[in-house]
Amino acid sequence: MNFETLSPRDLRAELEAFYADYAETLNDEAFEAWPAFFTERAFYQITSRENFERNLPIGLWRCESRGMLEDRVVAIRQTAYYGPRSIRRMVSGVRAHGWEGGTLKASASYLAVETLPDELTRVFNAGKYVDELVVENGALRFASRICVYDTLLIPNTLIYPL
Amino acid sequence: MNFETLSPRDLRAELEAFYADYAETLNDEAFEAWPAFFTERAFYQITSRENFERNLPIGLWRCESRGMLEDRVVAIRQTAYYGPRSIRRMVSGVRAHGWEGGTLKASASYLAVETLPDELTRVFNAGKYVDELVVENGALRFASRICVYDTLLIPNTLIYPL
Amino acid sequence: MNFETLSPRDLRAELEAFYADYAETLNDEAFEAWPAFFTERAFYQITSRENFERNLPIGLWRCESRGMLEDRVVAIRQTAYYGPRSIRRMVSGVRAHGWEGGTLKASASYLAVETLPDELTRVFNAGKYVDELVVENGALRFASRICVYDTLLIPNTLIYPL
Repeated sequence: MNFETLSPRDLRAELEAFYADYAETLNDEAFEAWPAFFTERAFYQITSRENFERNLPIGLWRCESRGMLEDRVVAIRQTAYYGPRSIRRMVSGVRAHGWEGGTLKASASYLAVETLPDELTRVFNAGKYVDELVVENGALRFASRICVYDTLLIPNTLIYPL
Repeated sequence: MNFETLSPRDLRAELEAFYADYAETLNDEAFEAWPAFFTERAFYQITSRENFERNLPIGLWRCESRGMLEDRVVAIRQTAYYGPRSIRRMVSGVRAHGWEGGTLKASASYLAVETLPDELTRVFNAGKYVDELVVENGALRFASRICVYDTLLIPNTLIYPL
Repeated sequence: MNFETLSPRDLRAELEAFYADYAETLNDEAFEAWPAFFTERAFYQITSRENFERNLPIGLWRCESRGMLEDRVVAIRQTAYYGPRSIRRMVSGVRAHGWEGGTLKASASYLAVETLPDELTRVFNAGKYVDELVVENGALRFASRICVYDTLLIPNTLIYPL
């Protein structure tokens, strides 16, 4: 499939499918499959709306390569100390903003809800994905995904990716 | 329409439309129309993630035919005793996992929010739909829908389907 | 593009894209771009499920032209007095209900979450969009959008559109 020649309608449909795969991979806690959604030199950041708008480099998470994402997975599985929880990510408002030199700009809203044992599920984090995608081996990959959150308070540690 | 020969993109679009019809039928409290989304011998269950992963048969709800779903509707309308509420179901992350002998495996995330009179809307239940669909009379139908919830605490009785 | 001759699948895809643009324009707080989603004589209302079902004209907001929407934007930017907040709208369950004399009836569910400074994000308002769309200059526009909310309590003032 040549993504760059797809009609806007078909391109958006492909994005929807890709975003669904991404979110559900994380919702299923299949973290080992998460880095493969990114290019080798991908940028992944979780940062506040305020910092994003002021172009400040600081973020809660900041990964500058797929290798750093893989390190995160090792941390989740082996080294980080945290209580059991589940996070479910809902995605809405997927939009393609156009190609520029082989890179597709896109965005969407996300809403992550958290469930702790013996507690009600609550809103954990809401925000916007600001993305750049490229095509590698015939498939979409994130060259950059920035999770820009509205929620300044994190009700718990941020252990799992968004 | 021959669903089995649709492209992945078109099949996912059909699933999205079917899931939207299902959720909105319940959101509109048109419960009488709910059993028709299922085959006559359909399986419908609402169960916890823990029980689902351990393959335990116990669930909060467990219906083994469309007739049992119809009984549920009678209960909602006539026999169950409960206070007024409204439940709204949001769906995200719809995925088709492929056909096997005329059956399509699919999944999605759901987030149900509850509104009680004179209270703020709150998260009621979040989880994953684990589905098997077949084609009957040219339309998709659930042969099996399992609502696997993250939320172990139910903040109220579960009266309405998910 | 002739919207009236699109297949149901393609029409729904166009609606999804239009609804995503609408929600994200508001989520990005680009309020100046909001009235352009409506026709000049559009009707926009935010009302409770109870009032909507009883066909009562009273609503929290009631605008009877695009000009009244523009007035709202002026209020948001200049005259209304309110504390900082952000509202994020998630949309699900988009459905096209058919054309009637050049007007398309459609609906969807929305979930708006609110973030106040130094507070956790919480559910702000959940409900259903009940819409009528027309085609103007080759693009979809709302001739009528009614936001029918489940949530009778508004946890804060309703400052921004839904």
